[in-house]
Amino acid sequence: MKTKIITISREFGSGGRTIGREVANRLGIPFYDKELVEQVALESGFAPQFVEEHGEHAPNKSRLSYAFSQQGVPGFMNGMSTADFLWSVQCNVIMQLADKGPCVIVGRNADYILKDRSDCLNVFIHADMDFRADRIVRLYGESEKSPETRLQEKDKRRRINYQHYTGQEWGLASNYDICLNSATLGIDTCVEMILSLLK
Amino acid sequence: MKTKIITISREFGSGGRTIGREVANRLGIPFYDKELVEQVALESGFAPQFVEEHGEHAPNKSRLSYAFSQQGVPGFMNGMSTADFLWSVQCNVIMQLADKGPCVIVGRNADYILKDRSDCLNVFIHADMDFRADRIVRLYGESEKSPETRLQEKDKRRRINYQHYTGQEWGLASNYDICLNSATLGIDTCVEMILSLLK
Repeated sequence: MKTKIITISREFGSGGRTIGREVANRLGIPFYDKELVEQVALESGFAPQFVEEHGEHAPNKSRLSYAFSQQGVPGFMNGMSTADFLWSVQCNVIMQLADKGPCVIVGRNADYILKDRSDCLNVFIHADMDFRADRIVRLYGESEKSPETRLQEKDKRRRINYQHYTGQEWGLASNYDICLNSATLGIDTCVEMILSLLK
Repeated sequence: MKTKIITISREFGSGGRTIGREVANRLGIPFYDKELVEQVALESGFAPQFVEEHGEHAPNKSRLSYAFSQQGVPGFMNGMSTADFLWSVQCNVIMQLADKGPCVIVGRNADYILKDRSDCLNVFIHADMDFRADRIVRLYGESEKSPETRLQEKDKRRRINYQHYTGQEWGLASNYDICLNSATLGIDTCVEMILSLLK
């Protein structure tokens, strides 16, 4: 496999973003995460913060949302719900970015969106709850909710989003080329493992 | 992590056993697969072929089996069903083998059985259906059933067995330290990746 694109899916707090950024730095190729979000935001007309918050979260699939969607009520684009419209814009942006050349893309179901390309290395980074809870408190500080609750909520939203748009189960090894436990292996080792596959 | 024990779980036909044997050879440590089966067989009084066939397969959990089990009908040991008795013997054997020193153990839910040890590297090897179908025909020859049917049946049995005895879902990345796709990465690369984690 001649890899050009590295997609990194990750559990919240596992260090997947840090690993992706370091891999991109070491390879001297673009890293798309916040940058990607901003580009999606520009193309969709949404505020960047909205895209950041909803891009990987559970789609709103209430009956009300469908009803509005069918009637073309403002807030629903081309008869699509906000979530579905955002998904279609994300797909386009990610495919365009991959066409541009080698890069690392973190999150946004890029593994699934680029599944027809043969030049992707799809990575999944995960870690146990203790490791992730400790990490998000160090990185993002405390909040009203316990770190475990924040992790569970975020995990649940990503799982529902992934399942909804890909029809696959979140976190199954078979969706990826390599899955790494950053808690037991260490973040630096995860970086080295990914790099060694690209040599 | 100071690794002494490498457990390898694998989808049938993915090359997990080949990878495990090569890792053990390169490290000069024991490799337990058939050897393990034979040892389990000796301790349990079962014929090796019976253990080979039932050790990773779906437990018989019909109402009838429970009824017999409670009544201590011959064929059920210490009030346990055949499958449960075999499971308890396998647990003991695997724990004893791990206590002996560094080794590679393939299959038999060893990752779960040894979960309380901190010196295990738990590996999962998987591959897509085409790769595995091609491989089992080359290795084990044709049979009356299509290779896809053979794979699906074996996968299903392993999944049910794993779920029943571990309470976890088979194939979830979070159950392992590293999961590798032998079809996209290649069997030799999988061996190198595992060895690099032990240096």
